[in-house]
Amino acid sequence: MKAAVLGATGNVGQIFVQLLEGNPWFEVTTVAASERSAGRTYGEASRWRQYTPIPEAVSQMEVMDITPQAVRDVDIVFSALPSEVAGKVEEDFARAGYIVVSNASSHRMDPDVPMLNPEINCDHVSLIEQQRKQRNWDGAIVTNPNCSTTVLTLPLKPVYDKFGIKSLIVSTMQAISGAGYPGVASLDIIDNVIPFIGGEEPKMESETQKILGTAKKPADFKVSASCHRVPTIDGHLEAVFVKTQKNAEPSSVAEAMENFIGEPQKLKLPSAPKKPVIVTWEKDRPQTRLDRMEGKGMSTVVGRIRKDPVLKGIKFVALGHNTIRGAAGCGILNGEYLKVKKFI
Amino acid sequence: MKAAVLGATGNVGQIFVQLLEGNPWFEVTTVAASERSAGRTYGEASRWRQYTPIPEAVSQMEVMDITPQAVRDVDIVFSALPSEVAGKVEEDFARAGYIVVSNASSHRMDPDVPMLNPEINCDHVSLIEQQRKQRNWDGAIVTNPNCSTTVLTLPLKPVYDKFGIKSLIVSTMQAISGAGYPGVASLDIIDNVIPFIGGEEPKMESETQKILGTAKKPADFKVSASCHRVPTIDGHLEAVFVKTQKNAEPSSVAEAMENFIGEPQKLKLPSAPKKPVIVTWEKDRPQTRLDRMEGKGMSTVVGRIRKDPVLKGIKFVALGHNTIRGAAGCGILNGEYLKVKKFI
Amino acid sequence: MKAAVLGATGNVGQIFVQLLEGNPWFEVTTVAASERSAGRTYGEASRWRQYTPIPEAVSQMEVMDITPQAVRDVDIVFSALPSEVAGKVEEDFARAGYIVVSNASSHRMDPDVPMLNPEINCDHVSLIEQQRKQRNWDGAIVTNPNCSTTVLTLPLKPVYDKFGIKSLIVSTMQAISGAGYPGVASLDIIDNVIPFIGGEEPKMESETQKILGTAKKPADFKVSASCHRVPTIDGHLEAVFVKTQKNAEPSSVAEAMENFIGEPQKLKLPSAPKKPVIVTWEKDRPQTRLDRMEGKGMSTVVGRIRKDPVLKGIKFVALGHNTIRGAAGCGILNGEYLKVKKFI
Amino acid sequence: MKAAVLGATGNVGQIFVQLLEGNPWFEVTTVAASERSAGRTYGEASRWRQYTPIPEAVSQMEVMDITPQAVRDVDIVFSALPSEVAGKVEEDFARAGYIVVSNASSHRMDPDVPMLNPEINCDHVSLIEQQRKQRNWDGAIVTNPNCSTTVLTLPLKPVYDKFGIKSLIVSTMQAISGAGYPGVASLDIIDNVIPFIGGEEPKMESETQKILGTAKKPADFKVSASCHRVPTIDGHLEAVFVKTQKNAEPSSVAEAMENFIGEPQKLKLPSAPKKPVIVTWEKDRPQTRLDRMEGKGMSTVVGRIRKDPVLKGIKFVALGHNTIRGAAGCGILNGEYLKVKKFI
Repeated sequence: MKAAVLGATGNVGQIFVQLLEGNPWFEVTTVAASERSAGRTYGEASRWRQYTPIPEAVSQMEVMDITPQAVRDVDIVFSALPSEVAGKVEEDFARAGYIVVSNASSHRMDPDVPMLNPEINCDHVSLIEQQRKQRNWDGAIVTNPNCSTTVLTLPLKPVYDKFGIKSLIVSTMQAISGAGYPGVASLDIIDNVIPFIGGEEPKMESETQKILGTAKKPADFKVSASCHRVPTIDGHLEAVFVKTQKNAEPSSVAEAMENFIGEPQKLKLPSAPKKPVIVTWEKDRPQTRLDRMEGKGMSTVVGRIRKDPVLKGIKFVALGHNTIRGAAGCGILNGEYLKVKKFI
Repeated sequence: MKAAVLGATGNVGQIFVQLLEGNPWFEVTTVAASERSAGRTYGEASRWRQYTPIPEAVSQMEVMDITPQAVRDVDIVFSALPSEVAGKVEEDFARAGYIVVSNASSHRMDPDVPMLNPEINCDHVSLIEQQRKQRNWDGAIVTNPNCSTTVLTLPLKPVYDKFGIKSLIVSTMQAISGAGYPGVASLDIIDNVIPFIGGEEPKMESETQKILGTAKKPADFKVSASCHRVPTIDGHLEAVFVKTQKNAEPSSVAEAMENFIGEPQKLKLPSAPKKPVIVTWEKDRPQTRLDRMEGKGMSTVVGRIRKDPVLKGIKFVALGHNTIRGAAGCGILNGEYLKVKKFI
Repeated sequence: MKAAVLGATGNVGQIFVQLLEGNPWFEVTTVAASERSAGRTYGEASRWRQYTPIPEAVSQMEVMDITPQAVRDVDIVFSALPSEVAGKVEEDFARAGYIVVSNASSHRMDPDVPMLNPEINCDHVSLIEQQRKQRNWDGAIVTNPNCSTTVLTLPLKPVYDKFGIKSLIVSTMQAISGAGYPGVASLDIIDNVIPFIGGEEPKMESETQKILGTAKKPADFKVSASCHRVPTIDGHLEAVFVKTQKNAEPSSVAEAMENFIGEPQKLKLPSAPKKPVIVTWEKDRPQTRLDRMEGKGMSTVVGRIRKDPVLKGIKFVALGHNTIRGAAGCGILNGEYLKVKKFI
Repeated sequence: MKAAVLGATGNVGQIFVQLLEGNPWFEVTTVAASERSAGRTYGEASRWRQYTPIPEAVSQMEVMDITPQAVRDVDIVFSALPSEVAGKVEEDFARAGYIVVSNASSHRMDPDVPMLNPEINCDHVSLIEQQRKQRNWDGAIVTNPNCSTTVLTLPLKPVYDKFGIKSLIVSTMQAISGAGYPGVASLDIIDNVIPFIGGEEPKMESETQKILGTAKKPADFKVSASCHRVPTIDGHLEAVFVKTQKNAEPSSVAEAMENFIGEPQKLKLPSAPKKPVIVTWEKDRPQTRLDRMEGKGMSTVVGRIRKDPVLKGIKFVALGHNTIRGAAGCGILNGEYLKVKKFI
């Protein structure tokens, strides 16, 4: 199937291109980006900065404008556009009949837009029907959550199902790649922690509720987040404190997490990790650099599950790869799910 | 007054020597360290690694054994010994009549040992009498708290006094210098976060209660900590979530913190910062590298004070210099207090 | 004396403001910057990022346009303008009668502009007369060298004087602050070395010759540079290989460097370090983080002086603080020299 | 074929195990390490710290003593022993009839021991005959060069063959993994450069001559090295300045490097990279983090080839992966060559 990547020259755009190389179902046939890049080859415009070489075929493609007219003949549109422009552009594509799988925050909280972390809530695709009716278009917009929310919600889901969640506190230690490129200035982050990431805390608080809720109604527990940027390249590490409804012993929590699988695993989607959540019992793991590539960057690794004396629940540490599981990888998994479900 | 520094060659020991250079009340006249260093000059044995030059006079001193017999004629003993050896050695000195001001954890939780963060609980020195009686010695052991606890408790004190504290959660991002030298391997921490620091979480949980309690009885709120090592040189940054007893508006909390002073300020002790807690309203501060030297490394900087929806209290970010306020600087301030109070 | 700082909001501009605070001869009375900042207070416009607090008086000043009309009543103008704009603006100030002491590269290689590393070639101020005649203005432009050249030439001068230099090779490891703010993206430099700094190698090659030459004629040895950016905050470390004219034993070279002083030391200028070059014999020094602040950031530290078997001369490692000695500090020292010499 | 890894628990030892997993010719059947580890399973003893999971089968193996008696039934012995112990232990194995392929420096400069960077000098295996005769054993010791030498010599070889080399200067920026584990303390290297690596400069100077010489006689050009540790995880970047015998235009040098292949390529050895040297023309490459995995970590990437005005030759930047090409990977390639040549 033919895929377009919008915003293909940015950091997440490059990772879409990188991960789609070798995907058995989708082939990048169009790359599109802002006017500044349009008209040049992708090789020139992207200043490729990934660890694997730029896919040769894509490198030669001309970068197109981010309009349905310019992109044309594709089956699915992956959007890595910055949120300042994504809102309107993605609507244009949906109106023109395209299925848009987006990493941008613009439409995530729209009540008729599914925000999918597919192991958790792929049934929310039912919102597409409503979306089409209300917005009067044939295409659709489907999004993935914010990177830190994606990492957080995977291990929360089995806890939510088995023990119930009354409220939760999360303190993040997020990698610089989460800010895109050029993103964070090196003078701002070497030997430093920045205890603020614009918009991140409200996103974590509201998106977590939407994902763990039903298609119609967000989950009704409270979330309190404190978000911090640390000097790591990739991988968001999060300290999580959960007040559960039922008593939750660490060993039972670990068991629930380890046994957790979702539709992507059942459907054997190509980008689905064998285990969405991997539990480690080593006392000083997960560690950002050592564990972020678990499940090819698609798993969350959880460690240090222990009782929390304040919330009378549990606390643990979770780690996931922010630009793979938390962005492009999650988007591609969503695309695979939509294909299996015949939306494409 | 003549001061000895035990464990003078290690990282905290060097900072004791560095800070005491120029202290108007104390002069380092003896440096002592483990057998490996004893007998060499301090200049040779210390492999000085601080940003200011090694004090010339101290550099020439012979490193003595860590025994009262070897140290002899001093008025106060500052101990930067590792906790494996501190327990017994410090007792030997107290038994020999010395006032030992220690950074080691060995005796911190002993019920008859004052653990002072002096702006908060210097009245705990009253325990010295009990200590002398029970242990039958003329000297005394006084300690400072663990570095992360020191940073945490300064801003907690005015909150505790004005609003009451029911419980609190803290997630730390701690600098590598907290592990001493050589401490953390570079292969373990560059581009990485290690979500575990041996013994740190129990220390934060119990020491916070002891400091904010009375000399006789620890405070009775619960503390839950998650401790993480990040790639910063100096400065512990902490995300703090507090359940208060009374309603606490961020502006009132800030006011309480800003107005907070303790005995060291009233007594104008030489090492006391003008303000123990500095509040910043910039949205992305405090930052580890930019703010750790506030108050010459003796203040805690607090920012991002906001309501916490989960605990129905407040959350904020606090930063302090772990080897100054959190170790040697706090020890020296304790020494100054003991001098004023005629213990020395 | 009243001083203006042009480009005061950038990183080097801030360091000019920081260092001039407390300078006994100059007082910042005007700060100027590009239109984007003009009209706001310096406190708002600068987003101050230094380790010492923003000087209170300067913080309140309104940022002026970078024109002689707007700046007006000052005795000396320090320019931290980016080179894209410095060329014309500095000429405007000189034409309006101001003495401009610039850190920009725009006029450095003009044959009638003194480029001063003042311990080495302050006699080049004689070019001012020629400059005034040729350009028909009453003011003057005086520059300091590029940061990496400043660090390099200090230890070269005594070698040049005593042993002669036939040619030299230098390989640099330069800090990120050399690229200004925001400068180098963190994604580009953490866990990385970038073996290219735009324009740096030609600058080092030509500026070194000009500084070590006479006012009329550059020195005639060849220089070959390879410049690299490494993940350090401040401090340029350089591996230097020198082909000398006479045989040069490491001990004699060290002696020449240690004894080297220049006019700033003889004239006791306030910003002059006691020793422009400090020699260390420790086998693994100088180190960037530990030694960059030697001489309050105004000295170059040299270590590992040894014979070079290829060039049949010597090799050594040199370190200096790029934004102090290599930029604002050198500019201020130049200003002090110009004052003593009655140019101001 | 059955392979033993000596020193298997250290960092290079782990990379031997990691790379041999999936090698089509060799299978790790024995892991051996110092007494401290012996008797425990490899999973317990190694504290595995690589990005790919520990090979399951090896994880379960008991760690053996580093003696021929304990290791027994294997066809080849890969040694990642530290040089303090390697000298004698490797001799014991050779005497017991084993082919030992070593990464240790102990025997590298022995005149009867081949030090192979196999694309360059695999004909040096002829020394084995002489070694066996002189030392009166049936086994053999073969080594790879020091990591920084391995990276350097690959691009030098085509230059040497086509243009001749009169002398060369090299300034290195070496990763922390080169020091093993725990290796460099984080307090020593974050925000720092250490301009000294024990023994490295003499090694680079003598090993380069041996490798580029004949089996009987080292090459007779002079080498001058300055070695520096920088805060990167993996990958040694080197600035190289070469005085050639014939005139060498950058384009011809690039062509020679790009076309260079050796015996491993001709013999299609499994671990041989397609191209030992990859030339990039991008102005700011190679970069440590982005390019170290080229050729699965087995290629050297060269960039910025330009004329050198001082040596009247060329200068360029070279990058290679120090623990793969520079250690375990080179050793395995040597093993593959020895197998093809029937030494095993």
